[in-house]
Order: sequence, then C-alpha cells, then structure tokens
Amino acid sequence: MNLLEDRIRKDGILRSGDILIVDSFLNQQMDPDLFVLMAKEWKARFGDRHIDKILTVEASGIGLAIVAAQVFHLPCLFAKKSQSINLDGELYKATAASFTHKNVNTIIVPKKFLHEGDQILLIDDFLANGCALEALISIAEEAGAEICGIGVAVEKAFQPGGQKIRSRGYDLQSLAIVDSMTDNSITFQKNDWLTLEA
Amino acid sequence: MNLLEDRIRKDGILRSGDILIVDSFLNQQMDPDLFVLMAKEWKARFGDRHIDKILTVEASGIGLAIVAAQVFHLPCLFAKKSQSINLDGELYKATAASFTHKNVNTIIVPKKFLHEGDQILLIDDFLANGCALEALISIAEEAGAEICGIGVAVEKAFQPGGQKIRSRGYDLQSLAIVDSMTDNSITFQKNDWLTLEA
Repeated sequence: MNLLEDRIRKDGILRSGDILIVDSFLNQQMDPDLFVLMAKEWKARFGDRHIDKILTVEASGIGLAIVAAQVFHLPCLFAKKSQSINLDGELYKATAASFTHKNVNTIIVPKKFLHEGDQILLIDDFLANGCALEALISIAEEAGAEICGIGVAVEKAFQPGGQKIRSRGYDLQSLAIVDSMTDNSITFQKNDWLTLEA
Repeated sequence: MNLLEDRIRKDGILRSGDILIVDSFLNQQMDPDLFVLMAKEWKARFGDRHIDKILTVEASGIGLAIVAAQVFHLPCLFAKKSQSINLDGELYKATAASFTHKNVNTIIVPKKFLHEGDQILLIDDFLANGCALEALISIAEEAGAEICGIGVAVEKAFQPGGQKIRSRGYDLQSLAIVDSMTDNSITFQKNDWLTLEA
C-alpha cells in the first residue's frame, strides 16, 4: 500500500512529454495532512540514524521539508535560487539545470548554516534528471556535511537521476516511483510504505 | 508574552537600513517547533470564522503557511513568482515590488485553485511596504474570493504596509510588530499572544 501512489492515480494529471502534474496536492497547492503521512514514512525509513538538519531547495521542496522537519523535530534549511540583499556573509553555491523552467539556476546556502560534520537529510519533491539534488549534494560535500539520507516524493525511474544518485552510494528513499507513463496511464514500481504494513 | 518577540530578541540580527535578519529561524532556516506555536496563535485569533484555504507567496511564506494549514486542516496554496511549463491553464497575475530583492515580480495563481466565494486566509512572513500582500489581495479580489483574515509573522509598524491594509478593513494579525529599530536595539508594540495568556 502506498498513499502517494493512490493520490497520484486519483488527482495527478498526465501530459505528453513525460509531464506529471501534481499541483493540486503536492506542488502549488499542498495537502498538509498528506504531507504529515509522507513525513512519517520518511521517519520510518530514516529514523534509525542521527540527523542534525533537513536541507531542501526552494520553492516546491519547502512545504515537504518543513513538515518533515516538524515530524523529525529538526531545523529545516532551504537553498535559495537567487541572491537577495538579506543573504549575509559567505555562501556555498552550485548550479542546477531545471527541467520545468528550462533554465539553469544557481542555488545558494549561507556557510553559517551548514558545517563540517553536520548530518543532514535532503528532501525534495521530484527526482527526474537529478540536477537539483546533485546541486544540493555538491553544496553538502563542499561544507563537509554528511548526507544521512535523501527523501524524494515522486521519482521518475525512466529518467537517470535516481540511478545516478544511488550509484554514488546514497540511501535514496522515494515515496512513489513512476516506472512508466503515457498520456493516459501510469505504472509504479513496487514500493509499499512501512507505515502502512499490516 | 510573545514567543516570536523573544526569539527575535535572542536570534535576530539588526542591520542599518531597517533590515532585520531572522534567517536562522524564520526564513532560510526554519524552526518548525516555533512555526507550530505561531500557527496555533493564528488559530486562536482566526479560529472563530469559516476558512476554506490558506494562500501565501513563494518562497519564504511557504513554510509558515503549510504549518498553519496543518494546524487549521486546510489546503495551502502559494502564488509563484515565475511561470514554469507546469503552470496549467488560465492564470491570475499581479505585480509586486520586492524590498529584499530590489525588483518587481509577477506573482501567479492558476484560476483552477481560487474560486468566487472561497473564504481564504493570507499568510506571509514579513510586512513592511505591503507590496507582496497587496498583490495577493488583488488576486483574491479578482477571483471573487473573500479574505477572512491576514496573518503575518513580523510587521514593521514604521513602514506603511500595515496601516494601508488595515485601513482597507482587513483583519490583519501580526505575531510581532516592530515599533522601531536601530543598529543595536529593537522595540515592539504591545501584542500579547492569546495562546500564552494566563
């Protein structure tokens, strides 16, 4: 059983070009009750290890990450995509190509928030080509932080991001993994939630 | 008693030019336990009315709004600042000048998420000149939605946004109201939290 797959089947919209629209409950509009259940599933999958902080990237990762941070009782940090006058001091920077915006972003984390030896959990909403996560990983590595795990909401297994990240040894836990999709059907890889096991 | 004022006095950083930096617990890094207490205070102030949905604007409003949505058990919608290929269908748009980014953003909400008669609560992190909130109000008005209340984390009373919005009749509840600030001191308007009253 997998509540996120159920919700995608019910409310997700399929578009040609491998586009899955989940903006009524996961992205632009968010269902906080679903987010709490997703956070509890990440807690079941990552709860055995020490974690100091959750790290995500703006904007659509923030909602999932702060709810996860609440369930884990940890601070939640997000990488910004542009530099504002309120970004103080020294910065970690990495570049990430965006599939949905068709551009390249620089993502930024102030050095004061990420330190050598910090044990961090990365959270993001989508994993397709993996560019956003690879930028977060590169910032964590530059800081000398240890990545304890990576939690993703929806992974597209037919795009290379998931395999690239797992092949580097990271414990990547996606809560729904799309095996294939067409304009009118979607299939998922078997991925039962621990929190729903009998 | 006011937990947000206490936290600002403890961890806020004052800079010349009326800049208050709260990025270690409210913006780029977020304290979810504080956010839950803030959300409960908004619930105490707005809980007497029917609300259908919470609306905010990316990026720094999202964390507060999703935690509030969780406490209110409501969907949470955010206005985007740029158009991605996943923004479907007809859109409401409004422009907002940004104090921190020194630019003008177009903020966007798909029409499918906001309807005539929807009773909405607006949430945002900062209120200074009020441009972001006025853009959200303009989108809500164009949709024919009713604004039941506006919840802000930190209001700067010496800038015109709060007065402009209250003079239009909106019930604006800020959880900390900065009366004045210098490079090394900050004073707040009296604003005891209902949830902390004896």
